[in-house]
Amino acid sequence: MKKTARAHTNIALVKYWGKKDKELIIPMNSSLSLTLDHFYTDTSVEFKEELTADNFSLNGVSKDAQQITNFLNLVRKLAGITTYAQVDSTNHVPTKAGLASSASAYAALALAASSAAGLTLSKKDLSRLARRGSGSACRSIYGGFVEWKMGTGDLDSYAVPFQEEVDWDIRMLAIVLNDAEKKISSRRGMQTVVATSPYYPAWVKTCHQDIGELKEAIEAKDFERLGTIAEENAMKMHALNLSASPHFNYFQPETLVAMQLVEELRAAGIPCYYTLDAGPNVKVLCLEKDVAQIKAKLAEAFNQEQLLLAAPGPGAHLLA
Amino acid sequence: MKKTARAHTNIALVKYWGKKDKELIIPMNSSLSLTLDHFYTDTSVEFKEELTADNFSLNGVSKDAQQITNFLNLVRKLAGITTYAQVDSTNHVPTKAGLASSASAYAALALAASSAAGLTLSKKDLSRLARRGSGSACRSIYGGFVEWKMGTGDLDSYAVPFQEEVDWDIRMLAIVLNDAEKKISSRRGMQTVVATSPYYPAWVKTCHQDIGELKEAIEAKDFERLGTIAEENAMKMHALNLSASPHFNYFQPETLVAMQLVEELRAAGIPCYYTLDAGPNVKVLCLEKDVAQIKAKLAEAFNQEQLLLAAPGPGAHLLA
Repeated sequence: MKKTARAHTNIALVKYWGKKDKELIIPMNSSLSLTLDHFYTDTSVEFKEELTADNFSLNGVSKDAQQITNFLNLVRKLAGITTYAQVDSTNHVPTKAGLASSASAYAALALAASSAAGLTLSKKDLSRLARRGSGSACRSIYGGFVEWKMGTGDLDSYAVPFQEEVDWDIRMLAIVLNDAEKKISSRRGMQTVVATSPYYPAWVKTCHQDIGELKEAIEAKDFERLGTIAEENAMKMHALNLSASPHFNYFQPETLVAMQLVEELRAAGIPCYYTLDAGPNVKVLCLEKDVAQIKAKLAEAFNQEQLLLAAPGPGAHLLA
Repeated sequence: MKKTARAHTNIALVKYWGKKDKELIIPMNSSLSLTLDHFYTDTSVEFKEELTADNFSLNGVSKDAQQITNFLNLVRKLAGITTYAQVDSTNHVPTKAGLASSASAYAALALAASSAAGLTLSKKDLSRLARRGSGSACRSIYGGFVEWKMGTGDLDSYAVPFQEEVDWDIRMLAIVLNDAEKKISSRRGMQTVVATSPYYPAWVKTCHQDIGELKEAIEAKDFERLGTIAEENAMKMHALNLSASPHFNYFQPETLVAMQLVEELRAAGIPCYYTLDAGPNVKVLCLEKDVAQIKAKLAEAFNQEQLLLAAPGPGAHLLA
């Protein structure tokens, strides 16, 4: 039976940066994210006896299916089937936004494929399955604020909801830079960092603390504290990259321009904070009531088309 | 008697970043620098019975003498005198170059003032004295490659020469940026880092290793290894700033442009490496034979007037 699932991408407030196990994708540290509403992937999966290989289309265009096949093999093993599948995905995550489309993609695929194979997985097992496709995908199984508990191996490394219903007007404004080419993949970046940064052990410890404090801030609806923790955690992650051998960074000149505008807004009394992932784009955490003023300030250096707004979003779910 | 001394500034290849004792200026880690020829300070000191306070002029302009008086008090105590002094300094370190003029200034002042007071200090004691004015000044007592051994207190924290005669065509090309305003002083920056960065203990350890390896590279005249160690050490220092709370950085958009041009030169086979201090300017370590090609490449983004070249320079000395 054909099943279609939708999953949303997420922004990490305490970052996942480093693997303990590359094959199983077990992280070196726990992370905490916010699932976003406007950016999502719809994926339909149908296992068909007549197919002689998996077929995969993305946004209506046929693509190489090797990675999909690797992932579907996990599902087939779980379901005890051997048939191939037709997989059709539509990505509603702007490619250049610097938001991990792999997170929504593998969360949607995990749900659609397991359902199509006749499985009814618990959310915990869905999260474990999505993790095998892309680490951060395990968090997109849930909506709102989500923690990926690092665990020690395949069985206990999965996401849990921290606050699924966010009754808070928190927003994320992504600034899409002109020269947003990613110089080094997150996979390679974190691998270099784990292997060479003298600061890495301290990073792991500091993330543990940051998650504890971030949870307190979320429960207290203390936006300034949440923003400060998220911004400082992101900077500690980027500090790791500078401290690696060879060192690298994801900053472009425009990245610094965006960071500075946010700092100026904050100095002017508007609570807003930035976070950055494995790319040059700057994502601004703010409150709904300040969005217009923030956009006006960012207009000093960026076009309105470069600004993408999102609010807290729901977890992965099947579409009727 | 009036005495005039000249001291040159220096560029740290393994950085001094953090104090163990703010009053005595005892560092948290040892550092290693190269004294530069073109950038220096000339200072004359004369103790005069008729003066009722210390007088200080810089580049012919009368200045507030409080910091000079604080420093001269150390010299007066050593010499057992109480007379005030006339101090005249001429700074040949371009203010905007991002090279610490305080290093050459206090090294020259230590030598001129102690001589004028009738003292003949050993270089070790001169270095200890200069350190009290500005940490990095203790290294400018010597020429060539110099190590500031951190020590444990006033008596054993001073610079020693590692290779005074540099028979090597090593050069430093400073790129003076347009917007070179320093946002946070090195004093405040390192204080924040020592107090808050979770990565600081690892920094101290890594500097110890870097100095050992840098000495090997200098002895082997292995420029690529020297440059790699210096560039990575600088990035590890700037990583500390990103990891502090509040985080900060000295990068301007143009800083990244300059860093990228150096990386492109290196990818094209020209050995050159950058280092950055507590400001946005980029200093390029290179060999004399490559200077013309490097300048040509940097012309893509910078004017020739923004480029300042220096070679290894001598230690502090009295002028006839």
